[in-house]
Amino acid sequence: MRYQEFTIEGRNAVIEAYRAGKTIDRLFILDGCQDGPIQTIKREAKKADTQIRFVTKERLDQLSETGKHQGVIAYAAAYEYAEVSDILALAKEKGEDPFVIILDNIEDPHNLGAIIRTANQARAHGVIIPKNRAVGLTATVARTSAGALNYTPVAKVTNLVKTMEELKKQGLWFVCADMDGEMMYDLNLTGPIGLVIGNEGEGVGRLVKENCDFVASIPMKGDIDSLNASVAAGILSYEIVRQRLKKG
Amino acid sequence: MRYQEFTIEGRNAVIEAYRAGKTIDRLFILDGCQDGPIQTIKREAKKADTQIRFVTKERLDQLSETGKHQGVIAYAAAYEYAEVSDILALAKEKGEDPFVIILDNIEDPHNLGAIIRTANQARAHGVIIPKNRAVGLTATVARTSAGALNYTPVAKVTNLVKTMEELKKQGLWFVCADMDGEMMYDLNLTGPIGLVIGNEGEGVGRLVKENCDFVASIPMKGDIDSLNASVAAGILSYEIVRQRLKKG
Repeated sequence: MRYQEFTIEGRNAVIEAYRAGKTIDRLFILDGCQDGPIQTIKREAKKADTQIRFVTKERLDQLSETGKHQGVIAYAAAYEYAEVSDILALAKEKGEDPFVIILDNIEDPHNLGAIIRTANQARAHGVIIPKNRAVGLTATVARTSAGALNYTPVAKVTNLVKTMEELKKQGLWFVCADMDGEMMYDLNLTGPIGLVIGNEGEGVGRLVKENCDFVASIPMKGDIDSLNASVAAGILSYEIVRQRLKKG
Repeated sequence: MRYQEFTIEGRNAVIEAYRAGKTIDRLFILDGCQDGPIQTIKREAKKADTQIRFVTKERLDQLSETGKHQGVIAYAAAYEYAEVSDILALAKEKGEDPFVIILDNIEDPHNLGAIIRTANQARAHGVIIPKNRAVGLTATVARTSAGALNYTPVAKVTNLVKTMEELKKQGLWFVCADMDGEMMYDLNLTGPIGLVIGNEGEGVGRLVKENCDFVASIPMKGDIDSLNASVAAGILSYEIVRQRLKKG
């Protein structure tokens, strides 16, 4: 499991978890409880934007694993990033040509979650995200991925261009999505491939784009500029799926 | 324009707009202003989850259209639903086979906005949503649609099944997305078509599904159950685009 939930029980333990910057997904507090430590927890929860549920003692007793909840139980999350080599190893293990999705600064956690979900269904072997600016694996990402985060490895790298160069040595070709590219249906997207999806507002960065072998464009016939980033990632991923299945 | 923003200026006007249930997209308040009516507006804004920006008097004067802002300016939104007949008329006007996207109870405004955006780019002639339960055209939907709401008509109907029956008389075929269908690449999705996308959790309703001519499935090779609804809508819409372009 790359994504795990664990419970934290008791006032001090929960306060400490917040102060240590842990991600608390859900918080259960005994209904009517108003004392100092509980007020502190409520303040921390508000700052961290945790959803609080006020519940009965019976419910807390039921949720408790230790029997010592003192009126508060938190569900915290832990995420484990993969290495790029894990992604390649997964492809090798399955006997498939590597298919990696590279995200050049996706900022919206709903988009990241939806893309990890798509990566899982389209049988991509992993997702690579950069360390700076971009959103990381938060509780919202885990929730939006609908469980896919448990199966699809996500690696975080310092320099996308450098990682792409290393992957090229392993035989991967890179295609990025942009408006000025060749129509995706006309490109050969089979073989070991890295699909690069750009930032929601700015698209793919210049240096990253220069390191791509192809630029693919989705036919856009509308009145506006672009598609939602996770929708575009879905359409391109499934063009790769279609070509791999030799359909159409 | 189906989606319009208009400004509301002055304390009473803004308070009344909130009390009348109008959707306020953005709110500008004079920085440092703390009196009773402003406090009331801040409370209403909090309830309605409006983003407040505290700005200088110069900025307010600049934004003001009446010159009488009294320290507060709100941007409200108005949306105009289309009729189903408008959607068919648009297809006729463009000389194209109708392509309509029907949403069976999409609940997440981000999904609805992203689907309207996809509908615009995939050259669908409109989107049909049901009156009950489902999310309507809110400010979040407008924002997520990235402007597409201004171009792509959205109709709201009381009974999806009845609307589908009427559209069948106009020559449309219906295809819904579900796991147990035929692989989408193997179906003929050309001609006048209605694409039905189900609810995020429950999929397409039984009655709606029974009224579809085909059930299409996206190949899913992952460890989880399904794709994000707006991603699935994007992949299926673009399979229709591909078949219309005779590509692949």
